[in-house]
Amino acid sequence: MPKIKCILQYDGSNFFGYQVQPEKRTVQGELEKALERIHKGEKIRVHASGRTDTGVHAKGQTIHFETKLYIPGNSWGRALNSLLPEDLHVKASEEVPESFHARYDVLEKEYRYFILNRKEPDIFARNYSYHFPYKINIEAIQEACRYLEGTHDFTTFSSARATVKGDKVRTLFEVSCQKNGDQIEFHFRGSGFLYNMVRILVGTLLEVGQGKIDPINIREMLEKKDRRLAGKTAPAQGLFLWKVVY
Amino acid sequence: MPKIKCILQYDGSNFFGYQVQPEKRTVQGELEKALERIHKGEKIRVHASGRTDTGVHAKGQTIHFETKLYIPGNSWGRALNSLLPEDLHVKASEEVPESFHARYDVLEKEYRYFILNRKEPDIFARNYSYHFPYKINIEAIQEACRYLEGTHDFTTFSSARATVKGDKVRTLFEVSCQKNGDQIEFHFRGSGFLYNMVRILVGTLLEVGQGKIDPINIREMLEKKDRRLAGKTAPAQGLFLWKVVY
Repeated sequence: MPKIKCILQYDGSNFFGYQVQPEKRTVQGELEKALERIHKGEKIRVHASGRTDTGVHAKGQTIHFETKLYIPGNSWGRALNSLLPEDLHVKASEEVPESFHARYDVLEKEYRYFILNRKEPDIFARNYSYHFPYKINIEAIQEACRYLEGTHDFTTFSSARATVKGDKVRTLFEVSCQKNGDQIEFHFRGSGFLYNMVRILVGTLLEVGQGKIDPINIREMLEKKDRRLAGKTAPAQGLFLWKVVY
Repeated sequence: MPKIKCILQYDGSNFFGYQVQPEKRTVQGELEKALERIHKGEKIRVHASGRTDTGVHAKGQTIHFETKLYIPGNSWGRALNSLLPEDLHVKASEEVPESFHARYDVLEKEYRYFILNRKEPDIFARNYSYHFPYKINIEAIQEACRYLEGTHDFTTFSSARATVKGDKVRTLFEVSCQKNGDQIEFHFRGSGFLYNMVRILVGTLLEVGQGKIDPINIREMLEKKDRRLAGKTAPAQGLFLWKVVY
């Protein structure tokens, strides 16, 4: 049976996250509804690189599904886009080998987090960045970012509600922060991420930027494996799943 | 009684336009609700520079109201913002002389219209620009813009449904169009605008850009005073009331 891989963009503002839930508008739910129409009522299960929470956006979420239909791989994007709502868009589609799996084959994921750092809010950016009106020391954040790169147990920076089995060791290839005028942008590239990990890292790094946490303390926080030591979870609307590499 | 002037921003996406309507969420409705709370149940009437339609945004809409409360003029912004929803924001407030009127004293209004000119849509810009995927000749549009500047009867470029009394002669100080990558931006500055005028002008200028209308024909279209000669009304989401000058 042909297997199709799609790269998706979505505006998370009006979705109850990625994963299907009864009676809720979700990304997976909208995708499977469109696929069911194309397959004349047959239910098609979609597999993603991972979930995203309510309000989190995607520029490069990746999914796969199997189909009995012999539509050329690169035509699936247009077919789906004609049925999908305007806040969910397939950027590219292709046929992939039977062995491909959108979740198990991930080599690297990239998240970006956007902050508006000025006193006045920007109502037009309210769903796509976090309005943080306090003074920030970017150099302190950049120093802290370096302590996060590499292979660590990220228990301190994952939700205490996480239900992930197995260890919480992950490798971050890049943790960086740039300020351009009143725009602050965080980049996170890693082998994998724990539940809420990016948002807890951002929340903690902002406390570093405010001088509430010393950059060097990040090392100790990692070692202690205690969620209570980290900062608040930054809000969902600043977070974008940017890219998934296979 | 003190008179207060406020400069407002709003994201028009989730408003049924500016003007109060029963059972509908409108900008004026939200403002008057907040003012009623501040005035402990007393109804306060707000006067704007003019209405905006459903989906149209504002960066610099201007309103005034009268109040019995002796709150410093520049404190009204903060007082209102604490009660207003997150898609409506007071940028500045001040006390003005009793003779000031937000509608009658307008010297100049500026509108801007934003277009995304590429094949692929941008789901994150879908509420703030018009996705126009066709090839456009910007020089032809710029030539047509020049014929629109100055004092003309704009009957051809106003909604046939308009109920404005009086003549349809208006003066446009600036009509311009710039392309920057796949972003196209129109600027319109004038003494006043008729109902739907900017959106009909943009719709017509896009037909000029596609080669459907010759730029020089704009002159004849103005002279004939016939709405049927102009192009389609461009959609609301690309339009911003940018500034009002008194």
